[in-house]
Amino acid sequence: MSSSAPWKQLLLNSINTNSHLKHSTYFQLATVGSNGRPSNRTVVFRGFQDGTDKIQINTDSRSCKLCIVLRTDDGLLESVQIEDLKHCPFAEVCWYFTETWEQFRIHGRVDMIDASNSDPDKLKQREAAWFAGSVRSRLQYLGPTPGLPSLDEQPLNDSLDSSAGPVDAFCLLLLDPEQVDYLNLKRNERLAFTTARSVNGENFWTQNKVNP
Amino acid sequence: MSSSAPWKQLLLNSINTNSHLKHSTYFQLATVGSNGRPSNRTVVFRGFQDGTDKIQINTDSRSCKLCIVLRTDDGLLESVQIEDLKHCPFAEVCWYFTETWEQFRIHGRVDMIDASNSDPDKLKQREAAWFAGSVRSRLQYLGPTPGLPSLDEQPLNDSLDSSAGPVDAFCLLLLDPEQVDYLNLKRNERLAFTTARSVNGENFWTQNKVNP
Repeated sequence: MSSSAPWKQLLLNSINTNSHLKHSTYFQLATVGSNGRPSNRTVVFRGFQDGTDKIQINTDSRSCKLCIVLRTDDGLLESVQIEDLKHCPFAEVCWYFTETWEQFRIHGRVDMIDASNSDPDKLKQREAAWFAGSVRSRLQYLGPTPGLPSLDEQPLNDSLDSSAGPVDAFCLLLLDPEQVDYLNLKRNERLAFTTARSVNGENFWTQNKVNP
Repeated sequence: MSSSAPWKQLLLNSINTNSHLKHSTYFQLATVGSNGRPSNRTVVFRGFQDGTDKIQINTDSRSCKLCIVLRTDDGLLESVQIEDLKHCPFAEVCWYFTETWEQFRIHGRVDMIDASNSDPDKLKQREAAWFAGSVRSRLQYLGPTPGLPSLDEQPLNDSLDSSAGPVDAFCLLLLDPEQVDYLNLKRNERLAFTTARSVNGENFWTQNKVNP
């Protein structure tokens, strides 16, 4: 038993070893819709929240009151039904590293931090996440509403004051891992990490070697 | 409206263009557990069922009565809780092509075909899927039960009569697409394909350009 997350260094190593591949920071995020069905989309790893094991993802909460959109600096933007996370606040990351043949499945609860959040600390985190992205990536939150029928030749908003804070559409997701399944295909090795919460709210992790 | 699936040629093109990359046949499959939470794992595309748009995936139904395990020729094998598909027979594929920057999200119902299936035609499909895999990949279904604690130095079963039919553990999954979301990041284009079933049970597809 350990209070630090034993899978975190494994993941940091994989991120580092695969960092020459642009897509190595992309993973797939599964959620459950209000209809009880699964959803799955590619999103971008935005790092760990400082001093924690929580995984950061940037999203766009605009549009049709049903969609959150996940964006990258390159325009990758996938809708997470906001109803998904209201209906079921859990998500599972599946992160496959194509060069080292490693897979991390990371299951946890998701905290959504949008402009309406009442916690000043969380709003600060959201602001930091906004400024951590490029101006180009911020501009996407001013573009046409994702998922709606596309009108050709829509004027693109191409200017944004780089010192301006997050727009309403910008939302930060924080995934707090509870279970991690690590698979190494080259070594044919699999590890199962599970957590239990102690009375003081701290996570304790256990680690088991299981059959791949 | 069209009775043939307009997304299928797009997908076949992407598979073809990316075929020099080993991982281009891997995608992430999301399901919903009996606890209502999402699961997500990497699996291998085993082609379309002949004459249909149904996506084939091979699985291992052994073990702990709770797991189906998805395997590749390289040993990639991830557990789908069999309870997942009993609880909710729907799944969503997220398939990202790392070279062409294209993403397909494919949502549909999953048919599980294991040894206990009562339909002779489906059992024939299962047999064909078994023989379509390499002998090496078939051997995995005789290995240690996936997900159980690993005992070091377990003897590996390394011989199998290549003419022997599917073992009990072998299960074929058929995903029948209902909705497909296509995103092309290089062209910044997104298409939404949806299906409706006509009275004769045939699928009709509609296609819409939507904001990425």
